[in-house]
Formats: sequence, structure tokens, C-alpha cells
Amino acid sequence: MRFLAVALSRQKKQMIISMKLHSTKQEVDAVCQRISEFGYKIHAIEGEERVVIGAVGTGDTTNHLESLEAMPQVEKAVRISAPYKFVSKEFKKSKTVISLRTHTGTVDIGGDEFVVMAGPCSVESEKQIIECAETVAAAGGTVLRGGAFKPRTSPYDFQGLEAEGLKLLAKAREITGLAIITEVMADKDVDLVAEYADVLQIGARNMQNFALLKSLGRCGRPIMLKRGLSSTIKELLMSAEYIVAHGNPNVMLCERGIRTFETETRNTCDISAVPVLNELTHLPVVIDPSHAVGNRKLVPPLARAAVAIGADGIIVETHPCPEKAWSDGAQSLTFEQWRTMMKDLAPYIALWKASRVGEPVLA
Amino acid sequence: MRFLAVALSRQKKQMIISMKLHSTKQEVDAVCQRISEFGYKIHAIEGEERVVIGAVGTGDTTNHLESLEAMPQVEKAVRISAPYKFVSKEFKKSKTVISLRTHTGTVDIGGDEFVVMAGPCSVESEKQIIECAETVAAAGGTVLRGGAFKPRTSPYDFQGLEAEGLKLLAKAREITGLAIITEVMADKDVDLVAEYADVLQIGARNMQNFALLKSLGRCGRPIMLKRGLSSTIKELLMSAEYIVAHGNPNVMLCERGIRTFETETRNTCDISAVPVLNELTHLPVVIDPSHAVGNRKLVPPLARAAVAIGADGIIVETHPCPEKAWSDGAQSLTFEQWRTMMKDLAPYIALWKASRVGEPVLA
Amino acid sequence: MRFLAVALSRQKKQMIISMKLHSTKQEVDAVCQRISEFGYKIHAIEGEERVVIGAVGTGDTTNHLESLEAMPQVEKAVRISAPYKFVSKEFKKSKTVISLRTHTGTVDIGGDEFVVMAGPCSVESEKQIIECAETVAAAGGTVLRGGAFKPRTSPYDFQGLEAEGLKLLAKAREITGLAIITEVMADKDVDLVAEYADVLQIGARNMQNFALLKSLGRCGRPIMLKRGLSSTIKELLMSAEYIVAHGNPNVMLCERGIRTFETETRNTCDISAVPVLNELTHLPVVIDPSHAVGNRKLVPPLARAAVAIGADGIIVETHPCPEKAWSDGAQSLTFEQWRTMMKDLAPYIALWKASRVGEPVLA
Amino acid sequence: MRFLAVALSRQKKQMIISMKLHSTKQEVDAVCQRISEFGYKIHAIEGEERVVIGAVGTGDTTNHLESLEAMPQVEKAVRISAPYKFVSKEFKKSKTVISLRTHTGTVDIGGDEFVVMAGPCSVESEKQIIECAETVAAAGGTVLRGGAFKPRTSPYDFQGLEAEGLKLLAKAREITGLAIITEVMADKDVDLVAEYADVLQIGARNMQNFALLKSLGRCGRPIMLKRGLSSTIKELLMSAEYIVAHGNPNVMLCERGIRTFETETRNTCDISAVPVLNELTHLPVVIDPSHAVGNRKLVPPLARAAVAIGADGIIVETHPCPEKAWSDGAQSLTFEQWRTMMKDLAPYIALWKASRVGEPVLA
Repeated sequence: MRFLAVALSRQKKQMIISMKLHSTKQEVDAVCQRISEFGYKIHAIEGEERVVIGAVGTGDTTNHLESLEAMPQVEKAVRISAPYKFVSKEFKKSKTVISLRTHTGTVDIGGDEFVVMAGPCSVESEKQIIECAETVAAAGGTVLRGGAFKPRTSPYDFQGLEAEGLKLLAKAREITGLAIITEVMADKDVDLVAEYADVLQIGARNMQNFALLKSLGRCGRPIMLKRGLSSTIKELLMSAEYIVAHGNPNVMLCERGIRTFETETRNTCDISAVPVLNELTHLPVVIDPSHAVGNRKLVPPLARAAVAIGADGIIVETHPCPEKAWSDGAQSLTFEQWRTMMKDLAPYIALWKASRVGEPVLA
Repeated sequence: MRFLAVALSRQKKQMIISMKLHSTKQEVDAVCQRISEFGYKIHAIEGEERVVIGAVGTGDTTNHLESLEAMPQVEKAVRISAPYKFVSKEFKKSKTVISLRTHTGTVDIGGDEFVVMAGPCSVESEKQIIECAETVAAAGGTVLRGGAFKPRTSPYDFQGLEAEGLKLLAKAREITGLAIITEVMADKDVDLVAEYADVLQIGARNMQNFALLKSLGRCGRPIMLKRGLSSTIKELLMSAEYIVAHGNPNVMLCERGIRTFETETRNTCDISAVPVLNELTHLPVVIDPSHAVGNRKLVPPLARAAVAIGADGIIVETHPCPEKAWSDGAQSLTFEQWRTMMKDLAPYIALWKASRVGEPVLA
Repeated sequence: MRFLAVALSRQKKQMIISMKLHSTKQEVDAVCQRISEFGYKIHAIEGEERVVIGAVGTGDTTNHLESLEAMPQVEKAVRISAPYKFVSKEFKKSKTVISLRTHTGTVDIGGDEFVVMAGPCSVESEKQIIECAETVAAAGGTVLRGGAFKPRTSPYDFQGLEAEGLKLLAKAREITGLAIITEVMADKDVDLVAEYADVLQIGARNMQNFALLKSLGRCGRPIMLKRGLSSTIKELLMSAEYIVAHGNPNVMLCERGIRTFETETRNTCDISAVPVLNELTHLPVVIDPSHAVGNRKLVPPLARAAVAIGADGIIVETHPCPEKAWSDGAQSLTFEQWRTMMKDLAPYIALWKASRVGEPVLA
Repeated sequence: MRFLAVALSRQKKQMIISMKLHSTKQEVDAVCQRISEFGYKIHAIEGEERVVIGAVGTGDTTNHLESLEAMPQVEKAVRISAPYKFVSKEFKKSKTVISLRTHTGTVDIGGDEFVVMAGPCSVESEKQIIECAETVAAAGGTVLRGGAFKPRTSPYDFQGLEAEGLKLLAKAREITGLAIITEVMADKDVDLVAEYADVLQIGARNMQNFALLKSLGRCGRPIMLKRGLSSTIKELLMSAEYIVAHGNPNVMLCERGIRTFETETRNTCDISAVPVLNELTHLPVVIDPSHAVGNRKLVPPLARAAVAIGADGIIVETHPCPEKAWSDGAQSLTFEQWRTMMKDLAPYIALWKASRVGEPVLA
């Protein structure tokens, strides 16, 4: 779906009218005309596959919606009360499934598989990333993480291998078949990163970089949007709404710890954000235990909790030699720890799967 | 164990010397003399069953410790670096197990059983608490919670049935065999509450009520110490140290959500506090998902996460008719939800148990 | 004023009826009867000087209030919407003034004088506290602070000289004429501390120690209630309401820094709490810059800001030799810094005073 | 000054060598050669007016520094221990002064004048912005604020007039002579905004948008960097370091409230950040009371506190008709309030000025 700019005022009543697939321009015009007759202002039309119309106005919305839904070319007409619309459960009840091609076939994030993404914080060298990729794949990971563009607090810290890093990631994919997730930090780099990555990651510090969010609307790749260090769940959804409203419905959310007064852990994992988000949105939700705690010892127990609470996946850091990692060494699992964690997670993932597909679970 | 006042300065080196059981006064004096000869100042002596000596000084501690441990009547002599001592893993590696008598025999908190405590926020009437107790017991709970003294933000809110509530809890124990946990809010009530309860709960708002903490040293009952809304993990341990240093080693800790900027949940459950505490202390750790999220829908997934991350138990609220509860209705499970949650938790508890007793777990 | 227990439900409409001074029992009964006829439930009657009646019910409140206020013995009948009642501006518009006798005559906290309270964190010795008192008085302070009972995170830290410390404070008052403020930590000590102190201070960690708050209702001394580290402004007011509802209207509030993620300062001074509180309550508000920042260099600029924003006073720590202080040395001003700060504050206090008494201020 | 990329590792010892003005390439080479001989790696050379060399290595730094400073072409050679370098007081003790041309001549931010910037949240129309500008200038403001690019949580909220808004700001400058400050949100817009604005503002949500920070290095305009909602003071300085290290030394910092648990105010103004920053950096510091509290009633007292604590200026919102403002109406002063506030501030600013220029202040 691709949307034109959508500008719905909050004060008035809002509706979203979804046209049937492949509806013609005439059919859309007919619906728009009816909406106008009801006194609404039309804000959004035309998507790639399906036209979605946003409208705002006052009056007897219930009647208007029924009347619009009765038109043959209209698939759905809903009133939206949450400030986020396209990402809300009011708009779409069934979970969004994001499919990636990997060596195991297709991985469905938000579907019946618990997805494990892993890899180093930064791509450092061909040897390092290939070694990571092979280790990740061997233990059951399906997506390789690795930063080519690195957001660093200090201008003097390593800023990533940039384009060179992207190429190394692509090479790792070729060899192992893993899908690739990597961060994009600037709107000017979106096309470049989209050329190499299967999923574009938006870091916590850019969660409200609205210029960047807008530029993701047409990149053609799924997005992983990380929650800002002090962003509320509602703000996370509003930022996802930016991406979807600009034309890209394939967004997954990532809880990676929020900033609190506690200093024993790098951040505080707001794990109940998972069931909260599952109530509010149809987008998949992933946990990043590595950034949440910042200490490799704590990653495996938190990963177990992420499975148990019903996240759609996790993204963790692992490195051949964490103490020599160019960034985030303290929170990267050794390969040995990575393998042990995956074994440890297996029975929890089995329970997860059983509950996802509705099988009875026997104690 | 009962300790005299302990006052070890932070700047200097500190050691704790644990005497063998039933050592005589002469044996203790001999050890104290040796410690004094080394130039240390002695701070703590005499416990109920076992004498523990705290000493502070400077010099070649390693040699001194070895020399002291070589004395026949000394069981252990350790240097302590954490500001909390008796509750630290440096002092005692094996987990503290708190045993309660119930209808099922003995429940060991911190042992090989995952303990589920449940019941209403407040004791409201005989009918209500008996109904709760029977429902809790029937689904596998072993400890009944219920407030007789209620800490309420407003002086105009229901403050609890007080002594009458304690009697009703005792009656519920008689009928069902459940152990009883209930809150004590003031040092003047410690003896009264200890007369009726199996475990005394210290609420989050009293975590640094040092006068109350001191009075728990000799109450003869295990304590559940809840983490303050904005207390660090280290402060939680320091408060537990108050209780243990004043003579009561049977303390369990409870993570019940901390205060953050997020408003979708009542508090934010700092779930990784569980593995952090397991690294730092030998005290059992319990999660209270009800207060953490404040919304009954979110309690069961968070309870699953609590089991998976390795807590020693949970404490949850359930009420025959939550919408009519005198307090905390929004976060109380209905009886139906309580039973469903317990069924849902069973396979996770089975995994928990297998990993506690060291059985190989097959996926 | 002394009040009986007040229990007004939140859901219903609430009113507070204030009788004229020295109204007779018959007059009160007549008003109560009228209230009952209107279908309200009566909750609070009888104060020491003035009877105040709390009532809760439903129906046409506006008419009821007018009708009640028309009764000759009634001074005021108001509907209260805030959860805090007696401390709200709805109940009383004019600022509460707390008068203390000192060497300068009377100091009115909440009146036309900016009050400066100062002294050491802990009372350590006669010499120390007398020296502090003389230095405080010489530079224009009117109230001496100094802890005799100390709330300490660690059970091994100095816990205060207790009763001995109170006697030393009294001695300092005798010599200098300064009024005394000191902390009380437990309800069992309230009478003892009230015997020596002019103002009883409730520390941040005890802000929601409801047993303690209740015991302050009849202590006969003004209270300084410090805001909890993570307590909201509304919770602070609710805790003040506990004290007032239990009979003690002389409460001043103290902002002493809240806990945030920032670590450059010990706490974060929520300085805008001052104008917020001035909108919501008639109670005086004091700032404690020492605990807010925890670093003596930052105390004087923050003290200036406290004057400028319109606080009613400040409470600061000063010590003859901060680096040797038994507690809080890092944030205690040297005597030299104390004197400089007072000189530095003088023109700001002059502006404060001019605006309090309504004089035109010329730039 | 213009700097090349600087990449100094944290682990090793770091020094910064500042060459004299107009030093020749040969002189620079000579210094570089000496540094290399000492075994240091050179990271940064060549500025616009002055060459500054960053070097990192190990060994006897003190001797090396003395030896380098003895070279005739070297102005200063210093060891830097803070992670931020160019913005630290270690590097430069005297305050950075940022001069703007206005109708009053030159305004020196960081100098002997307290600077007041004011205007609407968003530029809405020519009439609105001109009216604002005239009102701002008439009451003593010297810089006009007004958003043309607006960062909005919701994609459906007004996003600013963009280029059109910039032109209106320029028109307001022409008419009133006020300098212009306005926000830039994306690196692609930096040149455009720099064409119209006298100061470029970086919003709180972009404080760690490193791509944007880097692009400010060569924009030729002073920058106002706002502190992120949950950014530490150290992170704020690191972000400023990005801008300075990329060639733009004219950065002022802005405290605009941080995110805490308190909800009575929109954010919590961390006012002690001002003296903390004055200890750590030579950059000017400005307070934004409007965003800090989000409530116009609270703005004037907080502005007084900002003057008293020693900020270099304030930036406030004012609007001809706040209740109709397209954004941030609740926190915008009416024109009447704006004028009253400026009158109210005058004596505080007079005290500020006296202390800046070192005049004795008489109470």
C-alpha cells in the first residue's frame, strides 16, 4: 500500500475507508463524492495495490459508515478513535505478518514462528561477520544483525564501516542464506541500505526523527522500529504510524529497554510492553534483551521471559570475541553462550508455538 | 540468628567471621581477641544459634582471614566488599530457603518449588476471604495474600479491617491450610501481625522506613520486602540488610514494578531485577505482576515471564468480583482468570522445576 | 483545629462545611440535621477551635451549599473536587502562615518573610552544633536544622545521636534563639521530638509512612513534609492531607529533588513544583537545594532560583568542616560559602519581599 | 574554526594542540612531526582560521605537552580527560560568546546581556508572525522564534509551513530587526534553513540524530542544541561535541525539561543543569521555560528562576491568541502576559547583569 499525505485533525470524527483491491479510479471517485456529500473532508487517497481514503468531519458517523460500507467497491469503513490509525487494532484485527526469505525458506515475523535475530553489534571485518553468520545459522537463528552505520554518543567512537559493511552483510547472506537486518540513520542513506538489507532498523535515538520516518514510506523493505529510551508506548505507535501512513505497512516494533533511575542494568526492559502492544496494535513485537540489560549474563534469562510473555521474536548480540568488540562488547554473548541460550530456549519456544497454533499444551 | 548492632565503616576493610554452631563464650572470646590483635575493631557479636562477628580494620586482610579460619571454632571468615554484607553472595553462596507449613506439607520459597501466593488486595469480609482462599487452594496456590492494614494514598480511602482482618485470615488458614501473608505498616503493629501471619509483608512505600525494618529483626516470622517505587536494586538489598543485621535472616525480596514515565501500565515491571538479584544475593525473589501492571489482562503473560526468568514465586491479586473490590479492582483477576492462568502456567512451571533440580530438559 | 476521622468517597459529590468560631454543639447539630435532610452522609465533625463538617452525597449540590451557607452559624460551605480537601485552595484561599518564635521575634513561614533554615546534616557534638547555630544566626538564618534521628540507607552508617542530639539542639536554641527543625522517623518518637523541636521534619523516605503521618495530627508542632524521591505533587498533597485531616493544619511542604535518570546531580530539583503547588494549595513551600543537587558548589545558584521562583524559604546544609561531616559532607556549605551565599541572596530576597507585600518594583 | 574528522580513542591519553592564528603549513607539519616522534597518532588537523591538532598515544604526556607548548608556533597544548573535548572547560576556559546582529546592534549570547528569545510555536501566517515580532521587540526581546518545520508526534498534525514559513520569518526580521531562530529537522534542509535563519535550532527529539549533527558543522550559522527528553547532561555535551568537532564552534545549549514520572507539568525543568553546565563547558546555556512546564501560568516564575540561576538567556512562546494556536497553545503566553513577564523580569535581569560585569550588588 502506498498512501498520499494524510492529515486528519484530532478534534473531529475520523474514518478510514478501505477500497477493494484493484478498484478503478471511477469507483474511488464515486466513494469520494459520497463522503463529500456527507460533509467530510477527504485527506488520503491512492495506495499501490489498494486505495485507502481518510476522511474527517462531523455528524452521524455511524450512519455514514454503514452507508459507505454498503457501496459495492468499499471493503471496509471504520471510525478510528486512537490517535494512531493504520497501526491500531481498530483498523486491522489480524496480526501483520512480515515474511522474509532465508535459507530455511520463509520466515514469518508475526506468524507461527518465534524469530531469532542475532549477530554482532558492528560489522567489523569479513572474517568476523561470516563467522558470526555461520554460528547464528547453525544454532537456529534466521536473521543476521550487524551495524554498518553506527549511532555513537561520541564523535570519536567508531562510526561503522558504512557501505563496505553493507557489502559484507550481503556476502554473509549469500553464504548462509540468513536474512539481513541493519540500521539506517539518515534519510539520505535509505536507498543504499534498502539495496542490501532485508529489514531496515531504526534506532532508539531516531524513533522521533520524523524526516527519516517519512522517507521509509517508499523504501520497499520491512522496518524494525526501536522504541526510544524515554518514549511512551503511544509515541512508539505514533512513529510507526508515520511509516505506515507514508506507504509502508511492514513495520515491526522493538522494545529494547527504557531509561530509568536504575543503574544495575544499562536500561530497564519494559517487558509488559509486549502484551500492552498486543492489545493496541496488529504489528509484530520483538524484544532486544542485549540493549535492555547491557550485560551478557542477563541476556539468556531475559530472552526466556521474552518468549514466555509472547513476543514475536528477539534480537540479540553475539560476537566471536566480545572483549575485543568495537562496540557493545559487554552485552554480546560469546558463541558458546549463544549456543547454550538457543538450547535453553528450545522448550520455551515449543510452548510458544503450541499456544500460537492453538494446540492444547500439556504440563 | 540474632545480631548485636553492627557498624562497619565503608572506607576500611571489612570481614565477617561466622562461628561454628553452639560455640561457647570462651571460643568466641578467643576469636575476638585474635581479631583485636590484628588491629581490627569488632562490631557485631552473638546470634541466637550462631555467633557472627563483624570486624573492620586495615592491613593484610588475606592473611588475617586465613589465620582466623584456621581456628577450630571458626566456620568461615570472609572479606566483604559490597555495602550489604549478610545478604550478599559473598557471605553465603547457597540460596536462602524459607519454609512455610501449608495444607500441602511444607512450601520452600527459594527451593525447588515455584511458589504462587494469591488472594484479594484487602480482606473485606469472612465470606470474601474464605471464598478467595478456597479458590486459591483449589488451583494450586499455597499462600493466601490479603491486606488487613492498607497503605492508601488518600486518608479518605478504606484503610483496612485491621485486627478484624487478621482474624479472618487466620480463619481462612484453618479452613484451607494455606499459609498467610499480610502487610504490616507500623512498628507498633509488628507483634500483632506476627501473631496471625506466616509471612509479614513490607510494602513498597515502607521499604526505607528504617524504624519498621529494625523492628522486624526479632519478630520471628519470615519477611517479604517489596521494592520501593523508585528504589534501586542496591537500596533494596540495603533495606534487606537492615532486617538481617537486626536478627532475622528469613527475608524474601519482591519486585512489584518501578515508577517510570510510561503510563500505559501502573508501574513498569523491572523483570531483569530477578537475574540481577540472583547474582548479588542469596535471598529468594518473588514477582508481583498485579501491582507491576495494574491491569488484570496483562497479569497472566507477565506471570509466565516471571516463571521463565527464574523468579522463586509470584504474588497475584484475585477477587470474587473485582469490579466491586474495595481496592485495586482493576488489577485483580476474576476467579475464572485465576484458574486459567494457573493452567496456562503449568508447563512453564514444569520447565522451571526441571532446571532447578538440574534435570536435562528436552525440547 | 482538630478533626475526627474523615472518610469521603471519591465517586460522590463532597462538601466541606466550616462552622463559625466557637459555635455551640446545638448549632452544629442543626447544621448536621440539615445536611442529613439533603441526603448526605456526614463524616467529619469537631475541631479544636472550629468545627468542620465533611459530607458526601448526591443531588443538587449548588443549591444545598447555598442553603447551608445561609444558616447563620455556618461560615463557609464549599464543594471540593480535588482528592485532597483541607489542603486545597478550594477549601482555603489565603496562604497558611506558620509562626515560629526566634531571637528575631516571630518568623512567619508563608508570610512576608523569606525564611532561611540552615545547619548541619547531623548533630555531631555540642561544639559542632553551637558553632553552626551561631554561624547560621550571624548571617541571617532564623531556623536551625540538624538531624538527631538519621534515616540511612545502610544499617552500618551513623544513625544519629537520638535523644542526646535533641538536647544539644535545645541548647543551641537557648544560646542563639534560633528555632529548631529536626526529623522524626517513627511514630513512637513523635512525642519525644515534639518536646524539643519547633518544627518536626518528615523525610522523603517517610512521605508515605501513613502510620507516622497519622501520629502527627496531634503533636502540637508544625510539620515540614518532604516530597518523596519519586512522589508526584498530588501524592505530596495527599500525604499533607493525612496530617491535616488528623488534626494538624500547620504543614509546610518541601521540594528536595526527585529521582530521575540524570546522575550529574544527586537528585533533580523539580523547581516548578513551587508555582504548581502555589496554584493547588495554601500550604507554604520550601526548597532544599542541598539534597536536591548533592554538591555544595551548586547550592548557591539553586538557592537564588528558589527565591526568584517564589518559594517561602529554603533549608540548606552547612558544617564547620564538611569533609569531616558524619553524613552528607559533599553537599554541606562551608561557613565561608554559607556567609557568601547569604550576601549573594540579599538583593533577590529584597525583590521577593517587595513582590510579596505588593510594592512596585523598579528595575 | 573548521576541523577535520577527529577520532580519538577513549582508552589512551589524548591531547589537543592549538596552533597560533595564521600558522603556515610548514609550521603545522613541524608540530605534527614532533607529535609523531613522541609516538602519538594524529587525528585532526586544519581549521579555517586556526589549525587544531588532536593526538592520541601513551607515555609521559606531561613532558610531551610542555615540549610541544614550547614550540613557537603552538598556542596551547592540553591533555583532555573528559569524553567531550572541544566543548570542555579543559580546552577553553572563557565562555563562548555568540554574536547576533539585531535592531539593537549586536546581541552577545554568553556575554554581558541576558538574551530573551520569543515568538510563536509555529509560523502560521504573515499577520501572525509580524504581530508577534513587533510585540516581542517592543517589550525587549531581541530574537524571534517561530517554527517553519515542526516535529510532531502525530503524522496527522500540522507539520509547519516549511519554506513559506522561513520567508515569513525573514520578512519579520526585515520589519523589526530581530534576529531569527528556527528549527531544522533534516540534514537535507540545513542549507535552506541556514539561508534564512540567524540561529538553527536542533529539537530535543533530534539531539542524537548524529547525521543531522554532522551536517551542522559547515552551515555557517550558530546552533541552539536542545537537550533530549531523557538525555543526560553528558550526552548533551557529546552531541555538542559532534557539531564542534565537525567545524562549528558556535553552539549554545538549551535545557527544556526532561521526562520524569511527574505529570503536573509537561516535563520537569532540570534547572540545576545550568550551574552544572557552567562547570563543565564554555558554551552558553539557555532555558526554555515554555516547553519545560507546558502551562503558561508557570512560565513567568520559571523565567525568573532561569535569570537568577545564571542562564545566558531564555526562549519563550507567545502568541496573539494562544487558544487558537496551531500547536502548543497551552504553554504560549498571551501578549499581555508576555509584556507583564518582561516587566517582572527587569529587576532580576539587572541583578544578573551586575553580577556578570562584576559590579558590587547592594541589597
